[in-house]
Amino acid sequence: MQIKKNNKIINDPIYGLISIENGIILNLINHPYFQRLRRISQLGLVSLVYPSANHSRFQHAIGSMFLMNKAIIQLKNKGHEITKEEEEALKIAILLHDIGHGPFSHALEYSLVSNVSHENISSLFMHRLNEEFDGKLSLAINIFHNNYKKNFLHQLVSSQLDIDRLDYLRRDSFFTGVKEGDIGSDRIINILNVINDKLVIEEKGIYSIEKFLIARRIMYWQVYLHKTVISSENILINTLKRAKELILMKKKIFTTPALKIFLFGNLTKKDILDDKSILDNFSTIDDNDIYTCMKCWSNYDDFILSKLSKMILNRELLKIELRDTPFNDSEKEIIKNKVINKYQISEKEAKYIVFSNKVINHIYNTKESAVNILTKKGEVIDITKVSDQLNIDTLNNTEKYFLCYPGDI
Amino acid sequence: MQIKKNNKIINDPIYGLISIENGIILNLINHPYFQRLRRISQLGLVSLVYPSANHSRFQHAIGSMFLMNKAIIQLKNKGHEITKEEEEALKIAILLHDIGHGPFSHALEYSLVSNVSHENISSLFMHRLNEEFDGKLSLAINIFHNNYKKNFLHQLVSSQLDIDRLDYLRRDSFFTGVKEGDIGSDRIINILNVINDKLVIEEKGIYSIEKFLIARRIMYWQVYLHKTVISSENILINTLKRAKELILMKKKIFTTPALKIFLFGNLTKKDILDDKSILDNFSTIDDNDIYTCMKCWSNYDDFILSKLSKMILNRELLKIELRDTPFNDSEKEIIKNKVINKYQISEKEAKYIVFSNKVINHIYNTKESAVNILTKKGEVIDITKVSDQLNIDTLNNTEKYFLCYPGDI
Amino acid sequence: MQIKKNNKIINDPIYGLISIENGIILNLINHPYFQRLRRISQLGLVSLVYPSANHSRFQHAIGSMFLMNKAIIQLKNKGHEITKEEEEALKIAILLHDIGHGPFSHALEYSLVSNVSHENISSLFMHRLNEEFDGKLSLAINIFHNNYKKNFLHQLVSSQLDIDRLDYLRRDSFFTGVKEGDIGSDRIINILNVINDKLVIEEKGIYSIEKFLIARRIMYWQVYLHKTVISSENILINTLKRAKELILMKKKIFTTPALKIFLFGNLTKKDILDDKSILDNFSTIDDNDIYTCMKCWSNYDDFILSKLSKMILNRELLKIELRDTPFNDSEKEIIKNKVINKYQISEKEAKYIVFSNKVINHIYNTKESAVNILTKKGEVIDITKVSDQLNIDTLNNTEKYFLCYPGDI
Amino acid sequence: MQIKKNNKIINDPIYGLISIENGIILNLINHPYFQRLRRISQLGLVSLVYPSANHSRFQHAIGSMFLMNKAIIQLKNKGHEITKEEEEALKIAILLHDIGHGPFSHALEYSLVSNVSHENISSLFMHRLNEEFDGKLSLAINIFHNNYKKNFLHQLVSSQLDIDRLDYLRRDSFFTGVKEGDIGSDRIINILNVINDKLVIEEKGIYSIEKFLIARRIMYWQVYLHKTVISSENILINTLKRAKELILMKKKIFTTPALKIFLFGNLTKKDILDDKSILDNFSTIDDNDIYTCMKCWSNYDDFILSKLSKMILNRELLKIELRDTPFNDSEKEIIKNKVINKYQISEKEAKYIVFSNKVINHIYNTKESAVNILTKKGEVIDITKVSDQLNIDTLNNTEKYFLCYPGDI
Repeated sequence: MQIKKNNKIINDPIYGLISIENGIILNLINHPYFQRLRRISQLGLVSLVYPSANHSRFQHAIGSMFLMNKAIIQLKNKGHEITKEEEEALKIAILLHDIGHGPFSHALEYSLVSNVSHENISSLFMHRLNEEFDGKLSLAINIFHNNYKKNFLHQLVSSQLDIDRLDYLRRDSFFTGVKEGDIGSDRIINILNVINDKLVIEEKGIYSIEKFLIARRIMYWQVYLHKTVISSENILINTLKRAKELILMKKKIFTTPALKIFLFGNLTKKDILDDKSILDNFSTIDDNDIYTCMKCWSNYDDFILSKLSKMILNRELLKIELRDTPFNDSEKEIIKNKVINKYQISEKEAKYIVFSNKVINHIYNTKESAVNILTKKGEVIDITKVSDQLNIDTLNNTEKYFLCYPGDI
Repeated sequence: MQIKKNNKIINDPIYGLISIENGIILNLINHPYFQRLRRISQLGLVSLVYPSANHSRFQHAIGSMFLMNKAIIQLKNKGHEITKEEEEALKIAILLHDIGHGPFSHALEYSLVSNVSHENISSLFMHRLNEEFDGKLSLAINIFHNNYKKNFLHQLVSSQLDIDRLDYLRRDSFFTGVKEGDIGSDRIINILNVINDKLVIEEKGIYSIEKFLIARRIMYWQVYLHKTVISSENILINTLKRAKELILMKKKIFTTPALKIFLFGNLTKKDILDDKSILDNFSTIDDNDIYTCMKCWSNYDDFILSKLSKMILNRELLKIELRDTPFNDSEKEIIKNKVINKYQISEKEAKYIVFSNKVINHIYNTKESAVNILTKKGEVIDITKVSDQLNIDTLNNTEKYFLCYPGDI
Repeated sequence: MQIKKNNKIINDPIYGLISIENGIILNLINHPYFQRLRRISQLGLVSLVYPSANHSRFQHAIGSMFLMNKAIIQLKNKGHEITKEEEEALKIAILLHDIGHGPFSHALEYSLVSNVSHENISSLFMHRLNEEFDGKLSLAINIFHNNYKKNFLHQLVSSQLDIDRLDYLRRDSFFTGVKEGDIGSDRIINILNVINDKLVIEEKGIYSIEKFLIARRIMYWQVYLHKTVISSENILINTLKRAKELILMKKKIFTTPALKIFLFGNLTKKDILDDKSILDNFSTIDDNDIYTCMKCWSNYDDFILSKLSKMILNRELLKIELRDTPFNDSEKEIIKNKVINKYQISEKEAKYIVFSNKVINHIYNTKESAVNILTKKGEVIDITKVSDQLNIDTLNNTEKYFLCYPGDI
Repeated sequence: MQIKKNNKIINDPIYGLISIENGIILNLINHPYFQRLRRISQLGLVSLVYPSANHSRFQHAIGSMFLMNKAIIQLKNKGHEITKEEEEALKIAILLHDIGHGPFSHALEYSLVSNVSHENISSLFMHRLNEEFDGKLSLAINIFHNNYKKNFLHQLVSSQLDIDRLDYLRRDSFFTGVKEGDIGSDRIINILNVINDKLVIEEKGIYSIEKFLIARRIMYWQVYLHKTVISSENILINTLKRAKELILMKKKIFTTPALKIFLFGNLTKKDILDDKSILDNFSTIDDNDIYTCMKCWSNYDDFILSKLSKMILNRELLKIELRDTPFNDSEKEIIKNKVINKYQISEKEAKYIVFSNKVINHIYNTKESAVNILTKKGEVIDITKVSDQLNIDTLNNTEKYFLCYPGDI
C-alpha cells in the first residue's frame, strides 16, 4: 500500500479543516513575507470597539484561498473550463492579494508611504516572489492585474462580488460578533455562473445578493466606519503625523529600527519603486512596531504625542460626532478654542485633537463592473435594475461627516 | 418617563451582547492596567499552530465575568444567599484574576521574573487598585485569596470547576477551531449547587462533567501542549534566555524601553515586592515588546539569538519528538554533536537549539479540592469515585517527554 | 439550607436551556390543548422542500415566550414599568397566540372551517382556558385583543416587529438551513424602546431593522412562498376540496374520526361560535389526520383524489411556473385541454390539477402600525422614511402569479 | 458554451448545501419507499423530552450519504483505491441502510413484526428495489451484507465508527440541543485510514475518538435512554400490546387501514418472508398511523387503552425510577397493589401501567470489530488498549433498571 504524504491541515474556526497541498502554495505560505501577515491585524483598531476582532490578514488570505477552491469546483461543475494552471494561479492570486498590507491594514494605508495603496505593494511583493520562484507566479500576476484573456478569472479575485469580500465579510462578522453582517458565502458561490467571460449571478439568487449588499452596508456602518473606529483610526494617523513633525523639528524620539525609515524619510511611491531596500524594510514592519512606539511616546514630553498615544493604549478616545451634514467652521472654531484654552496649547497643536472630515462608503461601486444577474430567459442585467430594494445612489455614495474632540471640554 | 443611562454593551462572538453596568466594574475595565490585557494574547504562541487563536486576556476576563453573573443567578435561584456586595466582589475577583499575566501569558510566565506566578502579580495589581479605589476591592481580594467565610465563593473563582475554566475552554475551542474542546458551559452552570459551603455538581450532571474533563484533556494535548506549541514556546523562552546571557556578556543588544529592566535586571519575587516601580514597569509590557525585540534580534550578529528569533517570526521551528518515555543521554548527545558540527557552534550554544524536557498535564488535580457530586440521596462524593470512565491517575499525571532540534541535520 | 424546587428546563437547540417556572405558565403548557401543538408542523409542507423543517408550533410558542422574557427585562432596564401581572400576561399571550392553528398551520387555515383565521380560534381557546383557570387569563386576553390601556404590551405580542416574528424567522431559518433568513433577535430586542406607549427602535438600530426586513423578504420568497411550497400547499388544499366534493356526491370515503365533522359538515365561523363541541373537536385534529386520510385516499378509486394524495405522499408534485404577470386564459386553456386529453378526465376534474392564482407577500404592512425609529434628537419617524434602502411599495405589495399543471404533459 | 444540468440541491441545517447528482441515487431518493422516511421520526418519542427533535429518518439518510462522500474523498486522497462503482454502491448502501425502519424507528422495532429487526426489513426493501432497478443495487447489497471482498467498505456502512453513527450523533445532538453530544465528524473522517483492508484511526486522532465515545455515552443516557424516554416508549409499546389483546378478545377497535394487518395478524419473520404483500403493506405505515389510532383509542371505553393513549398524547407519563440495581418483587408488588386498588382494575390490567425492566447501552460493543488505532510505528491496536481513559467494561455493558408506575398513587 502506498500512502500519499499528508497535506498540511489548518484548522479554521469558520470553515473547519482546510487542506493545503504540498507545492508552491505551501511554499508561499511558508515564506517570511507571508508569515508577516500573522502580525498584521485584519481590522486595525476595530478591536477597540469589538474586542474579539484580533484576527489577522494571514487567516483572511488562507480563508479566501479556501473559498476560491470552492468557487473553482462550482464553476467547473457548471461546465466552465478552468485549467490546472489557471486553478493554481487563481489560488496564488487570492492568497497574495493583500500581502502588501502594512501595520493595522487600512488604518495606516497612506500614512507610512504616501500615495501607495496596499495593492501597489502587493504587486511589488508578487513580482519579487516571482523572481524567487522562477516565474511560477506569472499567470497569477496577470490575472491579478487583469492582463489575462479570461476576464472572469480576474473577477473572482477582484470585483463587486469577489472571493475576497466573501471571506472578509463572513470573517469580520464572525470575529466581531456582529451577526447581522454574516453572508451566505456557500449560497453565493453556489449561484455564481459565467456568461460571455463575465461572472454572473443566477436569477434565483437575487435575494441572496440583496442580503449580501445589505450585510455589507451593515458591516460598514457598524464596524468599518463605526464612529468609535473612525475616532480611533484618526487618532492613530495623527499620532504618526505628530511623530513625523517632531522629527522634522529635530526632536529626538524613539522608533523601532524597522519603522525608522518610514518615520524619518518622507517616502513616496517613487521611492519605493526606485529603491529596492525600502520594500525589504516594509517586509519587516507590523502592528508591533506601532504599539511599541506608542508605548514609548506615551511618556514623551511632547503633550500632543503623549496624549494621542495614551488615547489608543488606554482607550481614552476622543469624543466623536457623526452626522449627514458637514460641520461648519464656527462650530469647529468654538470647540478648538475651548481646547486651546483648557490645555494651553497652540492652534497648530490643537488640530491634532480637534478635527473634522468625512467618510464615504462604497457598498456598490458603479465605477467597478456591475453585479450582473443572469435571468431565466438568458438576459444579463445589472442587479440594481432588477432588484426593487437596492437604491444604487445611496448604496454607493453615502457620505457622513465627523468631528472629533476631547470629551472633557 | 425616566430612561436609565444605557449600560456599556460589549459584543462577544461567543455569548452575544454582554451588558456592563456603570460603576466600579466599568471603572476597572477602563483602567490602563486592564486595558493592557488587550495586548496580551490568551494563548501565547498557539497561534503558530491555530492561526485564528489571536484572542486576548481582555476578552477572557470579560467573558468570565459574564459567566460568573450567570452562575450567581443560578445559585441564587437554588436558594443560596449571595449578597449584593458578594456579587460585586465575585465579578471583580474573576475580572482581575488574570490581570497579572505578562507577554504571551503562560509561555513566559517564569522567564521575565523568576519564581513569580501570574497569580502573585494579579494579587499585587489588585492591592494597588484597591488603594486607588478606596478599599472597594477588599472583599474581592479576600475571596480571591480564600480568606472569606463563604468558601464556595472562592471556588467559583478558583477550583477544579471554576468559572475561569468554563470560559477559557469554550473560548479557546472557539478561536482555535478545535470543536472537540467545546464544553457545555450553560449546562454546567445549570447543574452547580452548594452543599455545606462547597460547590457541588448535581448527580444528573455527571456525564457533562465527564465530557468537561475529556474536553479539557483534548485541549491540553491538541492545543496547550500540542507538540508544535511546546517547540515554539521553548524557542521563545530560549530566545529571552540567550538575550539575557548576551547582556551578561556585556554585548549591546536592542531592547524596548519597557522591557529593559526585565532583561537587564535579574528580577526575582523579592525585587517585585520590594521595589514598587517594578510593578509599574510590568504594567507597560506586552506581546509587542517581545515581537519588536525579536525582529531586531533576527538581524543581530549572534548566530543563536538571530536564529531563535527567526524561528518564531518566520515559523521555521525546531523539529520536536514527543513520547511517553524520557530521551536518554546518548540519543541527545548524538543529535547535539551533529548540530555542533553542522553549525560550527559551541556546546553551550547548541543547548539553545537542542534540548529535552518533560511536560505534565493537570486535567484533574488531586491536590486541589475535588469535583464533588451531590447524589440524589444527598451524599457528596468525589467524581472520580462515581464515574466509571475517569481514570484519575492518568487524568492527573500524564507526563510526556520531548526533544527539540533543528530539522535540517 | 432550603433548596427551591427546580424549575422545568426545556432544551432548545437555538436558545439553549429555557427555564419555566412552576405556576400557571407551566400548567398551560401541560394542558392537552397546548400539547396538541407538538403535532402541528410550524411550516406545513415546507418540509417537502427543506426536509429538516419538521419543527412544530409547540417549540415556536415556547421560544417566543423565552424571547418575550428577554424583551421584558430589556424594557424594564430602560426604565419602563411592567408589573408582575403584566409580565405573566405577556408570557401567556405569546404562549397561546398560535394555539388556534390547525393541521399544517397556515396551509389549511381556511380549508377546514371557512372564514375563520387561526387568531379567531386562538381567541376561542384562550377564553375556554380562562374559564378553566378561574379568570387568570383575562389580562392576557385583553392584551392579545389590544383592549388594555398599555398599547405597547399588545405590540410586543402583535405588530410589525413583534416577538412572534423574532422567534419564527430565526427558528424557520435554523430548521430550513436558509441562513440568509437569520435575524439578530438579541440585537433587535436590545434596541427596543417605548415612547408615548408605542414600541420604537433606537436610531442606532436602523441597519438591524433593514436587515430584519430583508431577511423577512428572503424567507418569504425562499421558504414560505417558495414555488414548490406553493404547488404543494395548493395540491393539499385541492385534495381536501376534492374529498369534500366526493362526500357531497355521496361517495363513501375514509376519514379519521376526528376529522369527520370538518369534511362532512361545511363549517363556518357561525358554526364554531354557536356549537361548543366543534372547538372540542378542533382540539383533537392535527397533521396526523390529514396524512392518514391521504394515505387511504391514495388508493381510492377516484382518479383525482388518488392522484392528488400521491403527489404529496410521494413528492410527485405538479410543475409550477411563477412570474410577475398574470397567466392569460388562452395559456391556461391550452394546458387544461392537454391534461383533459392525456388523462381522459372532465374539465371539472382537470381544474384540480391545472390551476392558477396569485400570491402576495406582506413584508411590511402599511395597514399595521409602522416600525418607528426613535432618533437621537428624540423624534419618532416611520422607518421607511428614514431608511434610504427600503422601498415601501415593493416590500408591501409584491404579487406573483403562478400556474400549476402536471409535468408530464 | 455547454452548461451541465444542475444537480438537485438539498439544504441541510447541519452541513449546508448538499448536492445530489442525477442518476440512480436521485431515483432512489424519489422512490415512494424512500419518501416514506419523511414520515418516520428519527428518534421516536424523544420529542416528548426534547421538543425540537422532530427530525426524520429521511434527513439522516441524506446526511449520511453526504458524509460517506467526504469519507470516500478522504480515503482516496490517502491512496486507497475506491472505484466509481464502489463509490456509488457505498452511497446507495448508506442511503438505504435504514429504509426498513417503521413508525417511531427503534421504539416500535419489534412490536409490529416479531423478531424482525429494521436491518432485516432494509434488506428486503433493497432486494425489491434491486429488481426494480435491474440489478444496479447488487454491489451495494453485497457491501451492506459484508459479502464483498473489500471489508473496509462494509465497515464504512456498519461498524463501531461507521458513517451512520457519525451522522446520527451529530444530527441528534443538533436537534435535541444536547450540545455535549456533538462529535467532530469532520475531524474523525480526517483521521480515517485503511490498513490490511480494515478501517483504522491514525494515532493522532485518539483523543477525538475518546471524545466520540464519551459523546456517544452522553447521548445514550441523556437522550436515547433518558428516563422519560424509556417511560414514554414503554407506554407506547404497551398501548399497542393492549390494542392487540383487545383484538384477540374480539373487541372492535379502530385502526387505520394500513396498520390493520400489523394489529390483527400476529406477524413474524416467517410471514414477512413468505408473503410479499406484507412488505407492500409495511411500506405504507408511518408515525401518522400510530398517532391517529392513539387519538381514537384515547376515547375508547377500555380504561387501560384509553389511559395509555392519553399518556402519550397529553404527555401525562408514568413516573419512572431508574437505578443501577434491580427492583425486587416486593417493591413492585406494593406499588402494583396500590394501583389495583386506586383504579379498581385487575392484576393483568395493572401490568400495563406498573412494569419493570432493564436497559443496556452498547457504547462500544466488543462483539463488533474493534476501533483500531494505527500507531506512528505502524502497529494496529484496539483503542481500549491504547487509551488510558476508556473503561471497556463499563462502556459496553452498563445496565440500568427501571420501574414505571402512575405518579398519583
